Amino acid sequence: MSRFLSAQHKALVPYTPGEQPTGRQYIKLNTNESPFPPSPHAVAYAAEAAKSLELYSDPTCSALCEAFAKQCGVAPDEVMMTNGSDEILYFAFLTFCDDRHPAAFADITYGFYSVFADLLHIPYTLIPLREDFTINPEDYVSLGKTIFLANPNAPTGIALPLDAVERIIRGNPNNVVVVDEAYVDFGTESAVSLIHKYDNLLVTQTFSKSRSMAGARLGAGIGCKSLIADLNTIRFSTNPYNVNRMTMAAGLGALEDDLYMRENCRTIVETRGLTTEALRRLGFTVIDSATNFVFAKADWIGGNDLYLQLKERGILIRHFETPRLKDYNRITIGTREQMRTLLLAIENIREALS
Amino acid sequence: MSRFLSAQHKALVPYTPGEQPTGRQYIKLNTNESPFPPSPHAVAYAAEAAKSLELYSDPTCSALCEAFAKQCGVAPDEVMMTNGSDEILYFAFLTFCDDRHPAAFADITYGFYSVFADLLHIPYTLIPLREDFTINPEDYVSLGKTIFLANPNAPTGIALPLDAVERIIRGNPNNVVVVDEAYVDFGTESAVSLIHKYDNLLVTQTFSKSRSMAGARLGAGIGCKSLIADLNTIRFSTNPYNVNRMTMAAGLGALEDDLYMRENCRTIVETRGLTTEALRRLGFTVIDSATNFVFAKADWIGGNDLYLQLKERGILIRHFETPRLKDYNRITIGTREQMRTLLLAIENIREALS
Repeated sequence: MSRFLSAQHKALVPYTPGEQPTGRQYIKLNTNESPFPPSPHAVAYAAEAAKSLELYSDPTCSALCEAFAKQCGVAPDEVMMTNGSDEILYFAFLTFCDDRHPAAFADITYGFYSVFADLLHIPYTLIPLREDFTINPEDYVSLGKTIFLANPNAPTGIALPLDAVERIIRGNPNNVVVVDEAYVDFGTESAVSLIHKYDNLLVTQTFSKSRSMAGARLGAGIGCKSLIADLNTIRFSTNPYNVNRMTMAAGLGALEDDLYMRENCRTIVETRGLTTEALRRLGFTVIDSATNFVFAKADWIGGNDLYLQLKERGILIRHFETPRLKDYNRITIGTREQMRTLLLAIENIREALS
Repeated sequence: MSRFLSAQHKALVPYTPGEQPTGRQYIKLNTNESPFPPSPHAVAYAAEAAKSLELYSDPTCSALCEAFAKQCGVAPDEVMMTNGSDEILYFAFLTFCDDRHPAAFADITYGFYSVFADLLHIPYTLIPLREDFTINPEDYVSLGKTIFLANPNAPTGIALPLDAVERIIRGNPNNVVVVDEAYVDFGTESAVSLIHKYDNLLVTQTFSKSRSMAGARLGAGIGCKSLIADLNTIRFSTNPYNVNRMTMAAGLGALEDDLYMRENCRTIVETRGLTTEALRRLGFTVIDSATNFVFAKADWIGGNDLYLQLKERGILIRHFETPRLKDYNRITIGTREQMRTLLLAIENIREALS
């Protein structure tokens, strides 16, 4: 820390991303990346865009907003594209939260919400999940706070049905409810269908997971026109050229090739089912997942031990050290082959212990 | 504006980027883009990186930091890469400014500084340029504020010699001095050579101009290790994956091909000299520029009129409406051919008026 860091940030604890090893080649099941490459359309468009990088990207992002809006069944001025969905979430905290509009979110959810709130000195309330890690919608009604709801939730993988999400939105008419749908394409009903019904709903999505574009950094917000206009006021006050030309082009390519994404999601959902069954046969408690990962604990090995032993064997999974999570690990669903390798490694670890 | 926008942002006036037309093809001399495409190395590397977008980018950005640091003659932990240099500037405001460390910058300079300060509620002082648009370094000594100094300055194009920059850094030992070197490669001596001498110096640079990568969004901060560590604390609290894989790869390619950049800069400097002379012959006052643009006013047509008439003829230049600037326009140096077209158009406009 330098002697120049603003005193307001001295206690700040940044977000810890999952390991991104640059040396040894691991089977990476730790950051919920897709095991499939991006659509060939996305690759080709991005490569073409790389030829004219001397020109700024369109700050209104109009072509991509139009295509994405069409995909969502909304109007172009009801969407905004960002440098990953972390950026739209950051903007949402900056735009819709303050001392008079504190934030509220689950005690177990995406770890970045509390970091954003701490950075921006926004007071926040943690709402405990039930013992079984599910959300009780009634805990979120009439809160008087800006609500951040990851649906499906992370790292549990549990989805809330749309009627429960709607109950929360309807129950907080004077506060923005942000529904973070990073994993929605793996089998959860989206709240996008509700944006014309509720002016307090902001849905956030990402191209990182289902569209295999984590490395392109493309996120989006979907909400009524006035919410999006507010977010654009903040975007144009921080970084109007926030999405680069190549990512814009890749996004257009990916949207053209929706079938490819749907097929990949179907494959991942199938593999998730097989992995869940296999882990249960190996003595794991596995929460039913609506995402591209499973959250699981074994009755015969601690969470951290399993993480370390798999890492030694060249497989990365995600371990969290917080008390309610430390017995569990979050395991990304990779290819069928990668999951076979994982399950074999777990069998070997169990045999070595017995 | 929605009823949910935080009251603290209700008066916010966002930055206005230069026009980025998506319909009609203009000769674009309005946003200081390079008239040359990016290095073929940058294009090839970016296209290759597009094939593996399913993986997150390296949040430590280590390969690019190493290459960029080597280029700068500093250590990798003395640099940080960002989503355009707007992002490093935003981070600098967020990290090193607050009520007790207000900001200070010239009354005529990059328009985004005041927007960042307004957004973050950082008090700031505007320090008037001299009548001839130059900076008096003595105005910046012992200010007790975090200083933002664009060198060369925009939109004037005037550079401050390094000894004057050092006078400002030395004269504010207890405050960070940010030297924004977006245009440094067009003939100004960089302050990077001073980062080991002063722990209060942060230099910011961009790949947008001299490296023809405005559309890739790649900026950088260079400073002592502890300043960079503070900035990384803030980066990891907003968007750890701020630079995407394609831009990282393009950056590496561009750095490999430094000669290409140097040659393009030399060409632009030559064209700038010819353009300056030709404009003066056409009755313009042209400030000697150290950048890839000229700042000029005519004695026979107002700034806004010239802007509008050139736009009609398919040429975009940048006009500002603020009182001290409104007689002038900022004209990017394009190719020799583009400047010939510009000068011919200006001659035609003058003839039509006489």
